[in-house]
Amino acid sequence: MNKASLLELLAAVQSGAIDPTAATKRLANLPFEDLGHARIDHHRTLRSGLPEVIYAQGKSPEQTTEIFARMAASGTDVLATRVDAPTAAMVLASSPAAIHHTKARAITLRQSAATEPAGHIAILSAGTSDQPVAEEAAVTAELFNARVTRLYDVGVAGLHRLLAVRDQLTSADVIIVCAGMEGALPSVVGGLVGVPVIAVPTSVGYGASFDGATALLGMLNSCSPNVTVVNIDNGFGAAYTAVLIARASARRS
Amino acid sequence: MNKASLLELLAAVQSGAIDPTAATKRLANLPFEDLGHARIDHHRTLRSGLPEVIYAQGKSPEQTTEIFARMAASGTDVLATRVDAPTAAMVLASSPAAIHHTKARAITLRQSAATEPAGHIAILSAGTSDQPVAEEAAVTAELFNARVTRLYDVGVAGLHRLLAVRDQLTSADVIIVCAGMEGALPSVVGGLVGVPVIAVPTSVGYGASFDGATALLGMLNSCSPNVTVVNIDNGFGAAYTAVLIARASARRS
Amino acid sequence: MNKASLLELLAAVQSGAIDPTAATKRLANLPFEDLGHARIDHHRTLRSGLPEVIYAQGKSPEQTTEIFARMAASGTDVLATRVDAPTAAMVLASSPAAIHHTKARAITLRQSAATEPAGHIAILSAGTSDQPVAEEAAVTAELFNARVTRLYDVGVAGLHRLLAVRDQLTSADVIIVCAGMEGALPSVVGGLVGVPVIAVPTSVGYGASFDGATALLGMLNSCSPNVTVVNIDNGFGAAYTAVLIARASARRS
Amino acid sequence: MNKASLLELLAAVQSGAIDPTAATKRLANLPFEDLGHARIDHHRTLRSGLPEVIYAQGKSPEQTTEIFARMAASGTDVLATRVDAPTAAMVLASSPAAIHHTKARAITLRQSAATEPAGHIAILSAGTSDQPVAEEAAVTAELFNARVTRLYDVGVAGLHRLLAVRDQLTSADVIIVCAGMEGALPSVVGGLVGVPVIAVPTSVGYGASFDGATALLGMLNSCSPNVTVVNIDNGFGAAYTAVLIARASARRS
Amino acid sequence: MNKASLLELLAAVQSGAIDPTAATKRLANLPFEDLGHARIDHHRTLRSGLPEVIYAQGKSPEQTTEIFARMAASGTDVLATRVDAPTAAMVLASSPAAIHHTKARAITLRQSAATEPAGHIAILSAGTSDQPVAEEAAVTAELFNARVTRLYDVGVAGLHRLLAVRDQLTSADVIIVCAGMEGALPSVVGGLVGVPVIAVPTSVGYGASFDGATALLGMLNSCSPNVTVVNIDNGFGAAYTAVLIARASARRS
Amino acid sequence: MNKASLLELLAAVQSGAIDPTAATKRLANLPFEDLGHARIDHHRTLRSGLPEVIYAQGKSPEQTTEIFARMAASGTDVLATRVDAPTAAMVLASSPAAIHHTKARAITLRQSAATEPAGHIAILSAGTSDQPVAEEAAVTAELFNARVTRLYDVGVAGLHRLLAVRDQLTSADVIIVCAGMEGALPSVVGGLVGVPVIAVPTSVGYGASFDGATALLGMLNSCSPNVTVVNIDNGFGAAYTAVLIARASARRS
Amino acid sequence: MNKASLLELLAAVQSGAIDPTAATKRLANLPFEDLGHARIDHHRTLRSGLPEVIYAQGKSPEQTTEIFARMAASGTDVLATRVDAPTAAMVLASSPAAIHHTKARAITLRQSAATEPAGHIAILSAGTSDQPVAEEAAVTAELFNARVTRLYDVGVAGLHRLLAVRDQLTSADVIIVCAGMEGALPSVVGGLVGVPVIAVPTSVGYGASFDGATALLGMLNSCSPNVTVVNIDNGFGAAYTAVLIARASARRS
Amino acid sequence: MNKASLLELLAAVQSGAIDPTAATKRLANLPFEDLGHARIDHHRTLRSGLPEVIYAQGKSPEQTTEIFARMAASGTDVLATRVDAPTAAMVLASSPAAIHHTKARAITLRQSAATEPAGHIAILSAGTSDQPVAEEAAVTAELFNARVTRLYDVGVAGLHRLLAVRDQLTSADVIIVCAGMEGALPSVVGGLVGVPVIAVPTSVGYGASFDGATALLGMLNSCSPNVTVVNIDNGFGAAYTAVLIARASARRS
Repeated sequence: MNKASLLELLAAVQSGAIDPTAATKRLANLPFEDLGHARIDHHRTLRSGLPEVIYAQGKSPEQTTEIFARMAASGTDVLATRVDAPTAAMVLASSPAAIHHTKARAITLRQSAATEPAGHIAILSAGTSDQPVAEEAAVTAELFNARVTRLYDVGVAGLHRLLAVRDQLTSADVIIVCAGMEGALPSVVGGLVGVPVIAVPTSVGYGASFDGATALLGMLNSCSPNVTVVNIDNGFGAAYTAVLIARASARRS
Repeated sequence: MNKASLLELLAAVQSGAIDPTAATKRLANLPFEDLGHARIDHHRTLRSGLPEVIYAQGKSPEQTTEIFARMAASGTDVLATRVDAPTAAMVLASSPAAIHHTKARAITLRQSAATEPAGHIAILSAGTSDQPVAEEAAVTAELFNARVTRLYDVGVAGLHRLLAVRDQLTSADVIIVCAGMEGALPSVVGGLVGVPVIAVPTSVGYGASFDGATALLGMLNSCSPNVTVVNIDNGFGAAYTAVLIARASARRS
Repeated sequence: MNKASLLELLAAVQSGAIDPTAATKRLANLPFEDLGHARIDHHRTLRSGLPEVIYAQGKSPEQTTEIFARMAASGTDVLATRVDAPTAAMVLASSPAAIHHTKARAITLRQSAATEPAGHIAILSAGTSDQPVAEEAAVTAELFNARVTRLYDVGVAGLHRLLAVRDQLTSADVIIVCAGMEGALPSVVGGLVGVPVIAVPTSVGYGASFDGATALLGMLNSCSPNVTVVNIDNGFGAAYTAVLIARASARRS
Repeated sequence: MNKASLLELLAAVQSGAIDPTAATKRLANLPFEDLGHARIDHHRTLRSGLPEVIYAQGKSPEQTTEIFARMAASGTDVLATRVDAPTAAMVLASSPAAIHHTKARAITLRQSAATEPAGHIAILSAGTSDQPVAEEAAVTAELFNARVTRLYDVGVAGLHRLLAVRDQLTSADVIIVCAGMEGALPSVVGGLVGVPVIAVPTSVGYGASFDGATALLGMLNSCSPNVTVVNIDNGFGAAYTAVLIARASARRS
Repeated sequence: MNKASLLELLAAVQSGAIDPTAATKRLANLPFEDLGHARIDHHRTLRSGLPEVIYAQGKSPEQTTEIFARMAASGTDVLATRVDAPTAAMVLASSPAAIHHTKARAITLRQSAATEPAGHIAILSAGTSDQPVAEEAAVTAELFNARVTRLYDVGVAGLHRLLAVRDQLTSADVIIVCAGMEGALPSVVGGLVGVPVIAVPTSVGYGASFDGATALLGMLNSCSPNVTVVNIDNGFGAAYTAVLIARASARRS
Repeated sequence: MNKASLLELLAAVQSGAIDPTAATKRLANLPFEDLGHARIDHHRTLRSGLPEVIYAQGKSPEQTTEIFARMAASGTDVLATRVDAPTAAMVLASSPAAIHHTKARAITLRQSAATEPAGHIAILSAGTSDQPVAEEAAVTAELFNARVTRLYDVGVAGLHRLLAVRDQLTSADVIIVCAGMEGALPSVVGGLVGVPVIAVPTSVGYGASFDGATALLGMLNSCSPNVTVVNIDNGFGAAYTAVLIARASARRS
Repeated sequence: MNKASLLELLAAVQSGAIDPTAATKRLANLPFEDLGHARIDHHRTLRSGLPEVIYAQGKSPEQTTEIFARMAASGTDVLATRVDAPTAAMVLASSPAAIHHTKARAITLRQSAATEPAGHIAILSAGTSDQPVAEEAAVTAELFNARVTRLYDVGVAGLHRLLAVRDQLTSADVIIVCAGMEGALPSVVGGLVGVPVIAVPTSVGYGASFDGATALLGMLNSCSPNVTVVNIDNGFGAAYTAVLIARASARRS
Repeated sequence: MNKASLLELLAAVQSGAIDPTAATKRLANLPFEDLGHARIDHHRTLRSGLPEVIYAQGKSPEQTTEIFARMAASGTDVLATRVDAPTAAMVLASSPAAIHHTKARAITLRQSAATEPAGHIAILSAGTSDQPVAEEAAVTAELFNARVTRLYDVGVAGLHRLLAVRDQLTSADVIIVCAGMEGALPSVVGGLVGVPVIAVPTSVGYGASFDGATALLGMLNSCSPNVTVVNIDNGFGAAYTAVLIARASARRS
């Protein structure tokens, strides 16, 4: 039942075609979830302005291509993450206006009009190997209209590299920090700034890095209280939340 | 070397008392960290407006009391977390204007003038046992001038309880969700709203809850992309970041 | 909004006091969750007939006593689990008709009329130390009107003890098996019977039993396909599901 | 020794061909396990009516094909799970009447006559990637004569999707819920219904999902007491137990 | 049904009082497990000569005392392990002839006649803190009539201490090695001798010893192929198996 | 320094060519390890009679082939374990008298004369997938002159299969039990016999079997005190120790 | 056999009282380990100059006191670590010249003459709660004659504090860094200096710090190649190795 | 801002072109990190003399080749670790003077003049499979001008092999010990020498070796206090620190 059919029911009550008790019963049993579905969806889209995203990993190239095309047909911006090469080829063949971001393993299709950047996000990576995760975050944030400053390879073992970009850090509304191995960078960054820091552990490392678990644990134990954490390699999720924060900050003046 | 002594050095250069090469050498070796210390500190305080906080666990009652009194003397608001009963008694004897929040295991001292609430934070707990963590978050956020809505005991096994408070959820600028056991609540809440959700796993549970590790892992794997996570039982950290987000949101109209 | 107020709204539509469009808007925004609340609750109680239960661990004696008394006043059967000695004393002082099951660490109050046993549940324990968990299951199942056969200390290292009770196993509608250490008993039992087996790992053991985690893992890897598993020491949960199964089985002839 | 040879022995005692003491000795040392073997087997088959199943993983295509053909020759229904493509091709070449369920990675051969559905099982999956596990459960349950309702992609981050199918949930005798990542769906479903919920953690996810361990742990800690759990990706085991439960429920009217 | 009643049944068949078919039915359903119980029991006792043992941990002092007294009354040797002080006091009050081995946390009662030592067991401990576990093994082995050589504090960091006792090592039929921390001693000992080495990880250590898990893992990965492992702190189990091995070796000349 | 050169030194002392003090110094600093080397080696070989074994995993085909050939040239029996197909081909080409045991992934070369079997080892596997590990144990034990009884596919979910072979169990001097998944078989077997049981966890299973860790933990927590454990899939190590035990047992009559 | 008795044996060879062959046999079987014992011991003491240390945890006050007194009587410096209050009282009563370092939980007795500091060790702690571990390291290093610079509470979240002490860092021969929680400090320090950094994870933290395991893992994954790691809370071990390094460095000019 | 531009600024102050207050402001805000960058870099290079190293794993052959060539062009020695075959081919084609160390998976280019060996490092491996890690350490140390003694295959199960090389151990300034499986070798070596021992766990092993985690844990729990630990398979890191230690030791005479 959507709004149209609800209106129809209520008109029938008004016209006397259906009496209130019967209508009550129908409404009590109505699939209000469908109504809710639409409402929640719209509410969510209205508030966040962020479209649904295709997580391509575990989907066949055909599946991803079909979903991408259907979304593209609806006129919205489209984002697919964790896209491998065969899938990317098939999606681009189907949606030629889309862009494949190789390092980020992502495909974007911008169909909305250009807008003012909605806030400023600094995205840091500790090492060059963390770049794919950082780029996934950057591509996501840019499609969602945030201004992104990339600050890569600023790991804590060469502190001067980080200190050299401090001004860029302090001008951001929110900071995403991608790091593998010991995952120490978010704590250091968190101590340098007064904005939220979203830490993304990466699976970069070997041996006792346990595919990112060590970085994850380190970030969760950060002594900087402005650090929150997302799943290992989850650049997309970090950017999603960062955009929500950055937009609020951007509107404040 | 502070700004005064730096000015002095430069004046000496200007006057010719010291030549540029010698000054260069001194500046190259100057303890710029002290300069940096002050700058970073001030910068951070200016941007965040959030005072340092005393983490009382692992400190003796005497230590906590002394630090609390010293901070109180400086005229700022003061917060101590993870305060046990003997410590609370000693702090309150020393700082009678302070308030002991028993459930939150926290002590606050408000000395700043009342201000407009800086944003709206909804704080949810899945069960009644999660309340100490939720209260640590609530007391922290309130001291930091956020408006807090407490929505406790709205766990996912009785979904109607959560759906009944949806309006309150959707009016918040940021949401903190405290949950132990399977830690499912943040995912559900994240799907209902368009703002950042900060998930706090709690050590509530038994057996395979592994003192909160299960809830932590669940939250990190949330299928809602607006969820970020802090350490187990870290209500303070969640509130700290939430306040940073809520204030930005509050200023936007 | 409950059914009464919904009826009132629809009557207003019928009478023309409110037009369909306005009513649609109100219904779209109605707190249907409250409606849902009531419906879900009743539906659940009607189907399962199993009252809510007080998990006393982590609650103060006062809290447990108050909740127990409030439930008792409603005339239903009441169950409190994980009750320590001080709590038990306080509850019994307040509700003298209640019974304290010491080994099961549970308190029950039966207020419903006696009924035909709703199915037959066999409850096994591998060793004598698993008895508290088995008794929690037994007390729960008996309060929920199941017929319970206790078969304790039938661990796999003395197979003859188990084989000696095989007839009792095969006459049950569902079997609960509590075991610590290596947790092997559910697999053996599962192979002997054609009914569902609910495995309860217990925290009995030392060293590499890791407080029941080893038993839990063993049970999850059971080579008997009729074995499902609950949390460590969760005798209550096993009995709850077992009662749901046993009642269905009981009604079949 | 089977019943025939036992009868023969006793006849010899009756006829005096063998004296009681000698017979006692033979019986005391008899391979009663063979007797037991037959008995247990028959008992089990009689009670459960569920044939042995071929777990093809770790078996060569030749082995699986031979076992399948031998079982098929006995006239019973046959099920093979975890079948890869080469094995499927070889089995189908050998048993042309068999059906290969690609998504479920299973092969079935129905040789029994059609019967009334033995109970109603709802099978849910949280995401589309959980479908192989859900289909393994569905194919198993259908071969075992249960009526199956598939409800896929109803994860908790879009609650409306789940609420939209609530009527279908509440009409089931037992519910299987397949979910990866945080594994929150069983708790939510468990709260909506009054029947047993069998939770199947899936290995869907990345990073801190640890190949399904996080979902598994979450489900074991479910706050809904009608949830029991099977091994990661064990759709077959969930269906096996669900069929046992559903049949009992089906017979009750 | 025991042998006597079986004989009775067969006599009835012989006499025609019961016909073979009826007897077959009774035998098919006979509680052969009881028969088996006795048989297995006797077989086991006959082969191993090792009495059942009371694991006192998790039992009340009353329970342990009662079981101990009952066993003592049967005239056999009795062993209770993991006995705390209150339990020991109560047992000794009840069974004055028993001996409390404080370091081993064990109580023994020897009632069998003195026999030739059944083999030679060397028991090593890496450090002085491993002594309680080593003593549990020693007391067990001695009660079971093995000759025991104690070689304590011969850890690998002071290799000369171990090399100094090499002659005693090479004269043993089997060796028990108790070690915590890195658990390296069994590998070194295993390389020095040509007999089985039973490794007992102990919970001695701190930090990353994880209560003995590190020692356990180390021993399982021993590069000496004559090393097998038991649970953490399981001195009793090591001695039990060692006695079985030593007795076989002892009889060989 | 070997015995010859030591004799030479002492002869020089006797002849006066070197005085006692100088000889003392040389002996104090002598590479006694070489002396020790020889002694330990001979001692070990003499006592165990078990040759060194080639663990081929991680070695190149060339390396394994060369070591195998060198050992073969010395006239002893030779065993290589964990041999892959290319390595097997190369070894057999070089040592045509060797035998490749495909299932066991092992190569043996028997060059010693036939002897009386040195004891009797029963080797059990819980499922057919555990066979490679069981065969590695069997091939090892047979090369080391033990009599081996293979009892495969006797898992605990079909107890009658195990009970049917009980006589074969009770006639063994030592039993090796290979099992994956929940690893319950050693406990059941341990309860049926009075000889040492060596448990070999296998990596058979999926999901929460964690590549054999669950079976390993289960076996370490066995409630049967005659069970000791080796590393996951370590059929060779189990057989090595079993042979040491069986030979001692074999000599006793 | 010590040097004296060896000399005696060789004199007997020289005098002809014993012939070379018999002496060879005695020497081949001599307990050279005892000789080795002494030699290794002396060698080690000569090279390291570091006395054996009493690890008091797990020892009774009486045991620690007796060992301490015996060592003190030998005239060497003595160190006891992990000393609780009752033990400290008893040791000091027995050895009044000893000093109890409360924060370090250590007791020292200096009896050697004052020497030039053997190298310079900087000891850092990230937070004030890490101080007991840092002090254990400091007290150990000072007793072993190193010059120690304590730099406490210089955690990475307030980077300026660390940068302010950089000169002190760069003048050290080796640096010990104690940190709990995320354990990030060693990486940052390692990047600032050109000397070895010994990282000591501490058990400071809560929740996902897992009693120091997170800090330990972080340090093992340090991106600074001059960082090595010791066990959680092992301040003594860090100091022991640091002294070995510092002394070498100290002698170089 | 580098030294040149700083000098320029100060000259402007001296000349009056810029006044002290303005210069102070510029200096307070100057990117002193760049200055720091240079200083830290130079300081580090000056003290350690150890060039930056290319960690090739996770880099494309092109990336590694380009970085290698750029470093080579600067005239310094160059080291690349974790180099696979395609990368090695491409680097050598680009830098023909470089040497590919196949076993060590490393490429070195020596361009500095020959110098006196800076200290003596003994590198041990427990088994032949640990050799790649040991060789990575050896190649690194040799490029850094240390004298290296390789002592391979001296595992603890054949103690005589280790004792045979004791003289070589005791002449080293620092010792690197590479071991997988149970990781026991560093403890034994640590007890034989008076110098620092750097333990490198390797991923050699199977089953419960958990890819080196067991060896790592064992080494962290070493009972020899002169043992520190690096990450699994981190031969490079061990050599880096060992060189820092060895050079200090080398200069002492």
